[in-house]
Amino acid sequence: MTDTKPILYSYYRSSCSARVRIALNLKGIAYEMRPINLVKGEQQSPEYKALNPGGFVPYLIADGHGIPQSVAILEYLEEVYPETPLLPKDAHQRAQVRALMGVICADTQPLQNLKILKTKPESERAAYAVQIIEDGLAVADKMLESTSGKYCLGDEVTLADCCLIPQLYNAHRFGVDMDKFPNVKRIELNTAKLDAFVDAHWQSQPDCPEELRK
Amino acid sequence: MTDTKPILYSYYRSSCSARVRIALNLKGIAYEMRPINLVKGEQQSPEYKALNPGGFVPYLIADGHGIPQSVAILEYLEEVYPETPLLPKDAHQRAQVRALMGVICADTQPLQNLKILKTKPESERAAYAVQIIEDGLAVADKMLESTSGKYCLGDEVTLADCCLIPQLYNAHRFGVDMDKFPNVKRIELNTAKLDAFVDAHWQSQPDCPEELRK
Repeated sequence: MTDTKPILYSYYRSSCSARVRIALNLKGIAYEMRPINLVKGEQQSPEYKALNPGGFVPYLIADGHGIPQSVAILEYLEEVYPETPLLPKDAHQRAQVRALMGVICADTQPLQNLKILKTKPESERAAYAVQIIEDGLAVADKMLESTSGKYCLGDEVTLADCCLIPQLYNAHRFGVDMDKFPNVKRIELNTAKLDAFVDAHWQSQPDCPEELRK
Repeated sequence: MTDTKPILYSYYRSSCSARVRIALNLKGIAYEMRPINLVKGEQQSPEYKALNPGGFVPYLIADGHGIPQSVAILEYLEEVYPETPLLPKDAHQRAQVRALMGVICADTQPLQNLKILKTKPESERAAYAVQIIEDGLAVADKMLESTSGKYCLGDEVTLADCCLIPQLYNAHRFGVDMDKFPNVKRIELNTAKLDAFVDAHWQSQPDCPEELRK
């Protein structure tokens, strides 16, 4: 643990950045945000690539060390800031949380991010993104039948919620019908009552253009 | 911990299954393998989907509980079978291992799996897969400059090696030039000397057709 604030490189519209913003908020960790504008290509600048060769966000600097990859950052935060735990104690329940994280973070989000959408003809992008997101949410919703309560795992917020909710920003952007996913929809409504989720929302970020802010 | 052997649903060609096979071997965990033929669509059977709604492999049943998603399984094995640790003790080093896992398991493999390749015209698939794999390995290789020794993190095998090596099965399948990635190439050569990796290789699996076996 360190006395200096962690620094988070983030982009308001990045759902992967939002996962980390939510976890930092839930754990009450004060941090400094440095916006990286992905649309302007700031992640490709020599300065940023020298720091983070992957050139993505989020990227966290904590205790003088840099960490790329949102899931690696979430696991790090859980290990180093164990107050307000975001993983349960039981090994099988931890596996359930991480399995839900995998459905979103490996099987859904990467397939519908800008890099992949750009490989499609523009006229096909929206339908493709909807299909990918619906496929992912269908699996998540089925798993949530047996795991969820108010949140993804019973009535305690976990890292699974930190990953699921930002995926729904993209679902709404592409007009996905949330009534198809009743467990996901319930969890979205419940997390929307929590400041940590509200404050991490893309429309609440300092780098969100004024006209899009909530 | 349990007395009954874990059951692994696996497909010989699945690089995600191979991650788990390697970890089980490294930890010396005896397990029962149940092959699921993805090309024949066995993952879509009602019996398998009732077990694993995601319909993917790998899927592990341990201690009576099922776990989908390879990364969730790897973390579970590390927690429940701590002998032969595959994560270092230091939080920043653990983050380095998990960041490398993310580069492969979120940013590379999902983008070049069969589901996505099938959305492309057949004539474009190979070039697309090569590009995705090279992009991913370029990031990994750059990160490995500062983390690797004989293996991804210094001279001890970690979960990062369990994830990196199966990605190289796909790299070779598509003819990726490994000389572009000297750190990855060195680690591949070093892990090829270890039984755990040799025995988990796709060409060593019981469900691999005879004519493709090593």
